[in-house]
Amino acid sequence: MKAGSNKISIPAILEVGKGNLSYIGALIEKSGFSNIVLFLGQGINDMFGEKIRQSFKFQSTKIVKTIENDNIDINNIINTAFSIPAEADVIVGIGGGKALDVAKYCSFLKKLPFISVPTSASNDGYSSSSCSLIIEGKRTTVNAVMPYGIVVDIDVIKEAPEKYIFSGIGDLVSKITAVYDWEFEEKNGKGKVDDFAVMIAKKSVNSFVRTQFNSIREDFFIKELVDSLTMSGIAVEIAQTSAPASGSEHLISHALDKILDVPKLHGLQVGVATYLMAKVQEHRYERVTKVFRDTGFFEHVKTHAIKASDLEKAIDLAPSIKPNRYTYIHIDEYRQKAKKLLQEDEILKDILV
Amino acid sequence: MKAGSNKISIPAILEVGKGNLSYIGALIEKSGFSNIVLFLGQGINDMFGEKIRQSFKFQSTKIVKTIENDNIDINNIINTAFSIPAEADVIVGIGGGKALDVAKYCSFLKKLPFISVPTSASNDGYSSSSCSLIIEGKRTTVNAVMPYGIVVDIDVIKEAPEKYIFSGIGDLVSKITAVYDWEFEEKNGKGKVDDFAVMIAKKSVNSFVRTQFNSIREDFFIKELVDSLTMSGIAVEIAQTSAPASGSEHLISHALDKILDVPKLHGLQVGVATYLMAKVQEHRYERVTKVFRDTGFFEHVKTHAIKASDLEKAIDLAPSIKPNRYTYIHIDEYRQKAKKLLQEDEILKDILV
Amino acid sequence: MKAGSNKISIPAILEVGKGNLSYIGALIEKSGFSNIVLFLGQGINDMFGEKIRQSFKFQSTKIVKTIENDNIDINNIINTAFSIPAEADVIVGIGGGKALDVAKYCSFLKKLPFISVPTSASNDGYSSSSCSLIIEGKRTTVNAVMPYGIVVDIDVIKEAPEKYIFSGIGDLVSKITAVYDWEFEEKNGKGKVDDFAVMIAKKSVNSFVRTQFNSIREDFFIKELVDSLTMSGIAVEIAQTSAPASGSEHLISHALDKILDVPKLHGLQVGVATYLMAKVQEHRYERVTKVFRDTGFFEHVKTHAIKASDLEKAIDLAPSIKPNRYTYIHIDEYRQKAKKLLQEDEILKDILV
Amino acid sequence: MKAGSNKISIPAILEVGKGNLSYIGALIEKSGFSNIVLFLGQGINDMFGEKIRQSFKFQSTKIVKTIENDNIDINNIINTAFSIPAEADVIVGIGGGKALDVAKYCSFLKKLPFISVPTSASNDGYSSSSCSLIIEGKRTTVNAVMPYGIVVDIDVIKEAPEKYIFSGIGDLVSKITAVYDWEFEEKNGKGKVDDFAVMIAKKSVNSFVRTQFNSIREDFFIKELVDSLTMSGIAVEIAQTSAPASGSEHLISHALDKILDVPKLHGLQVGVATYLMAKVQEHRYERVTKVFRDTGFFEHVKTHAIKASDLEKAIDLAPSIKPNRYTYIHIDEYRQKAKKLLQEDEILKDILV
Repeated sequence: MKAGSNKISIPAILEVGKGNLSYIGALIEKSGFSNIVLFLGQGINDMFGEKIRQSFKFQSTKIVKTIENDNIDINNIINTAFSIPAEADVIVGIGGGKALDVAKYCSFLKKLPFISVPTSASNDGYSSSSCSLIIEGKRTTVNAVMPYGIVVDIDVIKEAPEKYIFSGIGDLVSKITAVYDWEFEEKNGKGKVDDFAVMIAKKSVNSFVRTQFNSIREDFFIKELVDSLTMSGIAVEIAQTSAPASGSEHLISHALDKILDVPKLHGLQVGVATYLMAKVQEHRYERVTKVFRDTGFFEHVKTHAIKASDLEKAIDLAPSIKPNRYTYIHIDEYRQKAKKLLQEDEILKDILV
Repeated sequence: MKAGSNKISIPAILEVGKGNLSYIGALIEKSGFSNIVLFLGQGINDMFGEKIRQSFKFQSTKIVKTIENDNIDINNIINTAFSIPAEADVIVGIGGGKALDVAKYCSFLKKLPFISVPTSASNDGYSSSSCSLIIEGKRTTVNAVMPYGIVVDIDVIKEAPEKYIFSGIGDLVSKITAVYDWEFEEKNGKGKVDDFAVMIAKKSVNSFVRTQFNSIREDFFIKELVDSLTMSGIAVEIAQTSAPASGSEHLISHALDKILDVPKLHGLQVGVATYLMAKVQEHRYERVTKVFRDTGFFEHVKTHAIKASDLEKAIDLAPSIKPNRYTYIHIDEYRQKAKKLLQEDEILKDILV
Repeated sequence: MKAGSNKISIPAILEVGKGNLSYIGALIEKSGFSNIVLFLGQGINDMFGEKIRQSFKFQSTKIVKTIENDNIDINNIINTAFSIPAEADVIVGIGGGKALDVAKYCSFLKKLPFISVPTSASNDGYSSSSCSLIIEGKRTTVNAVMPYGIVVDIDVIKEAPEKYIFSGIGDLVSKITAVYDWEFEEKNGKGKVDDFAVMIAKKSVNSFVRTQFNSIREDFFIKELVDSLTMSGIAVEIAQTSAPASGSEHLISHALDKILDVPKLHGLQVGVATYLMAKVQEHRYERVTKVFRDTGFFEHVKTHAIKASDLEKAIDLAPSIKPNRYTYIHIDEYRQKAKKLLQEDEILKDILV
Repeated sequence: MKAGSNKISIPAILEVGKGNLSYIGALIEKSGFSNIVLFLGQGINDMFGEKIRQSFKFQSTKIVKTIENDNIDINNIINTAFSIPAEADVIVGIGGGKALDVAKYCSFLKKLPFISVPTSASNDGYSSSSCSLIIEGKRTTVNAVMPYGIVVDIDVIKEAPEKYIFSGIGDLVSKITAVYDWEFEEKNGKGKVDDFAVMIAKKSVNSFVRTQFNSIREDFFIKELVDSLTMSGIAVEIAQTSAPASGSEHLISHALDKILDVPKLHGLQVGVATYLMAKVQEHRYERVTKVFRDTGFFEHVKTHAIKASDLEKAIDLAPSIKPNRYTYIHIDEYRQKAKKLLQEDEILKDILV
């Protein structure tokens, strides 16, 4: 037993603001790095390549290699990681979830600090230590390393297609059902929540859902969303498990990923499942409903033609995704209730096909 | 430059709930401690001594020494610390701010883990690493050690005299002006905010001020207050400076401490100064006003007879408390504005004498 | 700049003693682990399998999977790592260098603690954080993770074929030339030694070379060898570079690895190159000569038919192995001196073919 | 259970060399410090003040305060610590044991990095985290902080009066009996040695006692002594107990401190007790005898008139100094054996009065 409490890793750099992509060179140099390996996601070079290169123009920090790579297969990542030049002292990843996961896992393998620059806020992966990789053909979540830095350009996030913003909203609101599932496990003697992680996860989602806004593209709203997703990543780091950010609603989404040939965006699936499970849990579903209605999440979901029949299959498959957990979806009674809601709930009937 | 980001200390134990004082023995034993030194604040033994002793009745963990001591003079603390028996492996402090500071500093000197059990939520000291001690006759803030654990009994906090709850509210809302002062320093090239600490501080206060409640004594409200004050302590730990929790409004309160023979409760002074400075900063004063009005803070302050003339002196003295900072109160123009508000602002005229 | 000095990782378990293989189950259980994945090198199961399984007979700790795998190709390791069952909480590797490297890298990928149980003391890899893997067909040194524990059975080490013991002696004595090369770099303004790492490396080799012994198979001698190699691994960890353990003599050995179809044992090649470079450096070569003569290292080397002509090529190739370093072998003048010694030195003429 | 082994603190700066006192300014500036508080022991200013000040002449680092203070009373130290100016970012202590303890404890209280610059090598305190202070009138060992840096000027150490060098030799050789006592405790089921700490402690003393030398004032010998005492401090840090550096021989010395009005130098008392206890333990006493004879330690001790009768009393008192330990001196049979040796051992009869 040691004095002085737990140690957790938090990003040493956190910059969330307007126009940050133009300052990326200066931000990285200020942090003392000299030789950058730049990972760019698909399309990033076309959209932002010039701006990014310009940002290094007057810096002594130099880009020693640029890698455009969205391929999350572990064998690709291994080869990429060990082709990184020896003089590199930092990895900067700019792009969506896959590009960041490639860059993050290369950072882990090479023990280099990772600076995460998401171009959309579609989920909390940019601020967490975990990656979603393909290992022997299967999508697998593996633990890598907490980002050394997070740099977010509000202007980039808000100009991203609206589906990404809605995905982020869905992923964030899911903390409500996720935390409740975790507390349910504890009440049933199947584990122990980390109170600190719970507190952080709750504060992040509560601060967000209580925010007043006019448009989901206004700066203030986007900043709240990004900050809250960042804190959600920290809650996972504190807990040393994904439980504070991922409960039954995530299991349903993971099940959908297996069932569908072309899954929908992570946060959209998660959001729908969050509404469903909040009703099952009979916990804060009014709040969830209000946020999803006010932001236009429900309306947006309609455009993606999610099938109730797929959700039904996903409900049955969900417990087997993580058999060691004990969430609401692991209980037969609640699975039946969920399936009944699919048939009867007015909102679900409206947004699903 | 190291991979893997910053490391910060967070409490390994965080238990905020109803009736926790009855489980204190079990909670501490579960954490693996054997020999406790118990520090009790004034009056605690009378109020809760029996309950605390009962909680150890069926535990193998034993109390090797009980110390009742609210004397924050450093010489007293030194003697107390080095009288702690060698077999002690944890220090548990139960009481108000002074009792916790004595226990916390003894923990630091003896390099023992410290479990902080506040009996009021009158400020964020119970979750921070700093102490307020008397050194050579002067009240001095010194850095000690982050608590290993925080245990809060909601029932105890909510039954405390209401002045303590109002003091906690005042201390928490002050993060609004404190963070704004810090950002003001950065804008003026006088320092650099830690974005992560700012984010945590803002989330803690925003989650709180956006909370709906019926009574300041309801469980839900008290839990939000305690959680938010806890997060405020963490923000200070992340920042490695008190800046995210303490700006011009705290300097005014510290100045009052010097001016008054018998200062008012810390959080009451801070709260009044927060309202004043929010008006000076022209930043979120509507929100501050709403919270202080809805909770009854303003009404409560009236019962303490704080003098406008003392506040005026405190405004002039405030910058000299921390001459190296550069908050709004360090600028002559804003001091004049503050003093004018003392004369003209309707609310201030109402609550001050 | 932080108070409290540097933090380095050291093994939490270090057990070097007679018969430890029979206690391996108890040792691991005592450390609080429940579910072991056991990595066994080639031949280990035949030789020690029964003994190892017996050691778990009366323990509640259980072996959840046994993996016999000496294949250091990264693709093999990836697949192996991600086939480890989720309930595993520790990886135990028992065997020679390759088996330990496979186990160590799997531990790194899965973020599990690694317990290193070498069956020979042929080099200091069992106590270091680095691995030698095959990546895209090439032998590559990569950084993984410091062992959580090291368990050495003196009886096993001393019954290993003598070539392994001589290899260990060669690898240990090489710290004399390695450290001198590092200091040479510093003197020439090409880097900075870490004085603490230098001190540890010197103490480890000096304590060993000053040890009196009757036979290289006596317990006391084996223990000194194992302890000294362990400390050499720690010196590398402190320095965060292999420099305190690897100088020009290692570059010559790495060059031989490239030149020869079937390289000799690492420590034998390194030992010969150490003698050569000590003569080139004109530094402590009497001591090196004495140890290699007294232990029988020189006599043993003769049985391996190392060719002077291969060494000559290796000398020329050596600087290109690590072009960023600046050891004696990077200087043309000293390479010429080394090649001349190959022709003229009586001992080299005697032991090489 | 965490992956990645134990973390220990080691000095970030370690510079042991000739003339280092002249480079102290440059060494500290290179480490990134700006504002130094300099603690000087008694007499240091007269002897080295000019040299130290000169060393800062061309540095931008400045001395913000110089404190000459050898008073190890805790009340003095508290007042001194809290008078340190806020801008100080490092404490440098130059002097003997008491001056370093004052500086070290002030560093601990103020959470500032401490750079230890011993002017004699009379014991291993300069490289350890513990201090010997006077608390309520009694000499008490308290835990403070590991030095951030250690800077030793070989020229200063070797010109110190020879009694300090002999004291250092006595303190170092005592690791032989101390480690044996610790292993004795383990064998008797009274505790568990830390194998890593044992290994480091043994390597440090063995490397030293096997060193060949012509004079105790030659550079090489002094450097070995300083390095070995440094490693002894590290062994204590690893073990998180003084056991690897302090056994029955130290208890006898502590007992002498209580018995004598004017105790002899720590390392001299310890050395004599080490010889005595090595005979009692029947462990490596030939080696101890050889080192003490070859270095002239025995001859030197004669000049201090240590009384056999005082040692006899100290033997009886020793176990009570640390009643929780279980060394040879805690066993009545061995205390009798020790007292008999005082009467009969030829060497003891020769060197004691």
